[in-house]
Amino acid sequence: MTSELEQLFEFLRFPSISTDSRHAGDVRACAEWLVGKSTALGLSAELYETPGHPVVIAKNKHQPGRRTVLIYGHYDVQPVDPLDLWTSRPFEPEIRDGKIWARGATDNKGQMFSHLLGAGKTIAEKGDLPVNLTFLFEGEEEIGSPNLAPFLKEHREMLACDVIAVSDTGMVAPGVPTMGYGLRGISCCEVIVHGPNKDLHSGLFGGAVANPATAVAQLVASLHDAEGKVLVEGFYDDVRPLEAWEREMWAKVPGVSDADFLEVTGSPATFGEAGYSAAEQTWARPTAEVNGIAGGYQGEGSKTVIPASAMAKFSFRLVPDQDPADIMKKVQAHFDKHRPAGVRIEVVPGHDGRPYHVDPQAEFGKAAQRALKTAFGKEPMLIREGGSIPIIQDLKDILGADTLLLGLALADAQIHSPNENFPVENFESGIRLNQALLEELSK
Amino acid sequence: MTSELEQLFEFLRFPSISTDSRHAGDVRACAEWLVGKSTALGLSAELYETPGHPVVIAKNKHQPGRRTVLIYGHYDVQPVDPLDLWTSRPFEPEIRDGKIWARGATDNKGQMFSHLLGAGKTIAEKGDLPVNLTFLFEGEEEIGSPNLAPFLKEHREMLACDVIAVSDTGMVAPGVPTMGYGLRGISCCEVIVHGPNKDLHSGLFGGAVANPATAVAQLVASLHDAEGKVLVEGFYDDVRPLEAWEREMWAKVPGVSDADFLEVTGSPATFGEAGYSAAEQTWARPTAEVNGIAGGYQGEGSKTVIPASAMAKFSFRLVPDQDPADIMKKVQAHFDKHRPAGVRIEVVPGHDGRPYHVDPQAEFGKAAQRALKTAFGKEPMLIREGGSIPIIQDLKDILGADTLLLGLALADAQIHSPNENFPVENFESGIRLNQALLEELSK
Repeated sequence: MTSELEQLFEFLRFPSISTDSRHAGDVRACAEWLVGKSTALGLSAELYETPGHPVVIAKNKHQPGRRTVLIYGHYDVQPVDPLDLWTSRPFEPEIRDGKIWARGATDNKGQMFSHLLGAGKTIAEKGDLPVNLTFLFEGEEEIGSPNLAPFLKEHREMLACDVIAVSDTGMVAPGVPTMGYGLRGISCCEVIVHGPNKDLHSGLFGGAVANPATAVAQLVASLHDAEGKVLVEGFYDDVRPLEAWEREMWAKVPGVSDADFLEVTGSPATFGEAGYSAAEQTWARPTAEVNGIAGGYQGEGSKTVIPASAMAKFSFRLVPDQDPADIMKKVQAHFDKHRPAGVRIEVVPGHDGRPYHVDPQAEFGKAAQRALKTAFGKEPMLIREGGSIPIIQDLKDILGADTLLLGLALADAQIHSPNENFPVENFESGIRLNQALLEELSK
Repeated sequence: MTSELEQLFEFLRFPSISTDSRHAGDVRACAEWLVGKSTALGLSAELYETPGHPVVIAKNKHQPGRRTVLIYGHYDVQPVDPLDLWTSRPFEPEIRDGKIWARGATDNKGQMFSHLLGAGKTIAEKGDLPVNLTFLFEGEEEIGSPNLAPFLKEHREMLACDVIAVSDTGMVAPGVPTMGYGLRGISCCEVIVHGPNKDLHSGLFGGAVANPATAVAQLVASLHDAEGKVLVEGFYDDVRPLEAWEREMWAKVPGVSDADFLEVTGSPATFGEAGYSAAEQTWARPTAEVNGIAGGYQGEGSKTVIPASAMAKFSFRLVPDQDPADIMKKVQAHFDKHRPAGVRIEVVPGHDGRPYHVDPQAEFGKAAQRALKTAFGKEPMLIREGGSIPIIQDLKDILGADTLLLGLALADAQIHSPNENFPVENFESGIRLNQALLEELSK
């Protein structure tokens, strides 16, 4: 195994699950390790406290007259359940079939670390980088980056830059360089339905009291028509229509046909809003998804209860020019309007982030396309992304810089799922990409 | 504490949870304890193996020329979760406010044990009982008595009887003797909705694949109109209309007004099929309840996944003359008709039992009413019950005898819920009831 892979494996072994308070110590240990690693690679690095998990900043010596580039990444990861579906343990990385298998291998440790190693390599080869570089590594991306915007505001001068690069998005196919120019936003909430003040015997009381599990199901069911179109009033009002060139280019993108989606997901059938391809549905159309639903007895056998309460966790993926706060207002109005009788509804708003969109043919976009071509030997594809990186909009608003989305994730990377993986080849391309990118951006 | 209570506490300390295979040893230990206890009280007792949990039979010496009475009870109990809502531990019985607090205190250990102690007392006082008595104690009532009907068939001669008595139903109010002449039946199933072959990132794939949690919610929501009427086609076809005398009597029964239901359940509002009181809704109208629903992430914080699968556990409470098999066929047809697109549906049938109904003014019914009056000093109320004891219909079919439902459970007994309880007074009345009942039935 190469020294680069050995260092990545060290990084992947930290169970830095940001959403689970039991892992707070692991998240911090991971941040401290990053400070040490960045220093060893020739950067000057520091850990910054936040009200949540720490931020790590690593820089070369900035000099006047050079472009300043900020590279963002996150060292926190998603939870790992259901654990029994993993082939190897999530925090004991392994290489099988040319891929690195571990939680965070793609999202985002593998991608961010290739940039860090790329910068270290250039420093080792040339003594310095061709630009002023600032690495910004956060530990709260998977919980919606609640403390990053305040951090950006507080350290606006230290983080001042001309352009930002992030590798936390997808490649359309193995070996095909990809530049993203759009991301979906997100707006989350949890709905708790309260009924009786305790679980009730469904024989003794069934028929005379409302069942919170039924009520939460009715709320979930009220969100879509049979084809998957969202029924929240005004939901599509601000959705920017797809442009003709986008539909044309995306139709040629490999790996994102409806058949590809079926194969990658293993879903039994195609599904979704009529009139849109799977790529269009996921890159340019908004959604309403229930990410979790629970109520009553879930164990072995049966238990004939009417549960005291039930809940559902929702996330709404948004596209330009939808506004998360406006959408949450419309969703709350929808739940009010569709509130089932006989229960009490509690809506707890969650994290959110605006959708993102930039012009791919502006100066830095063209530089990034050249770097991608250098690193991969092919013309890049221009796409949007279905995922959400709310911080990208914050970076734009607070630092005033556009972000280049230079993703290295493959569609079957299983991010957020069991058996997350990252090809060794993508890790190595990422190192080359960082070297070419800083060179192109210095011009 | 009286010796009777001390003996009951010993019985309640067994965590005889029949649905949970981890407690199989506790269920057996409880059965063995019952054999010893019955023997000590002067009966001849034996443990019988079944493919599941054991049955215990205890008898006095049967003599020709006497009535033969069978008393049925169950020594298994419901699960105890959510454990953190119990004031005292479920298997460490305590007396507070004149009540015994423990899992099984009412359902059914407290009630069945008062009969056993009543018989023991009569034997101690008079040397024998006035009738031939057979106690039949099973350990699988809470999982639908899968092995009792075969047991009844195999031991039909040993169990032959003129009449059956069961205390596993409700009293309408403290101190008001109650005879039940009807029970709802039940038909259960679990629905598993299968979507992608793993949990998916809701950003990358949301909009292009069906979400099993949404689909299961749509199935649940398809079952009712806004007032709680069941929408399964043909569901009400065989429902026997309420008779005028029933509606009149039930209107006078204490403790079962809509306001009483609200107070006992703590539900935020009245709810249910229009045109029926809460008593009528629960005693004489069928239901479709979801007892458990689950899919996706349920932990702290958020995890933006589309779950690979989701499930719901259903129970349908049935009234005369609905047939469980017929209802399950109609429910399956309903799920087929309302199957959401893009997912695969698996319906796993569960346990069932027919609704039960007898004439309260036949000979044994009158004897039971006299015994209730002797034990409580008041005229009994005649009611039906919302719960299901499927075995009652099996007893009728296989042994050919009617069952007297002489319940001692109060509405706030919290059976199947945290903080199950049983008044000491009801326990003592149960002992008197057994003595009076065997006397009246001997006439």
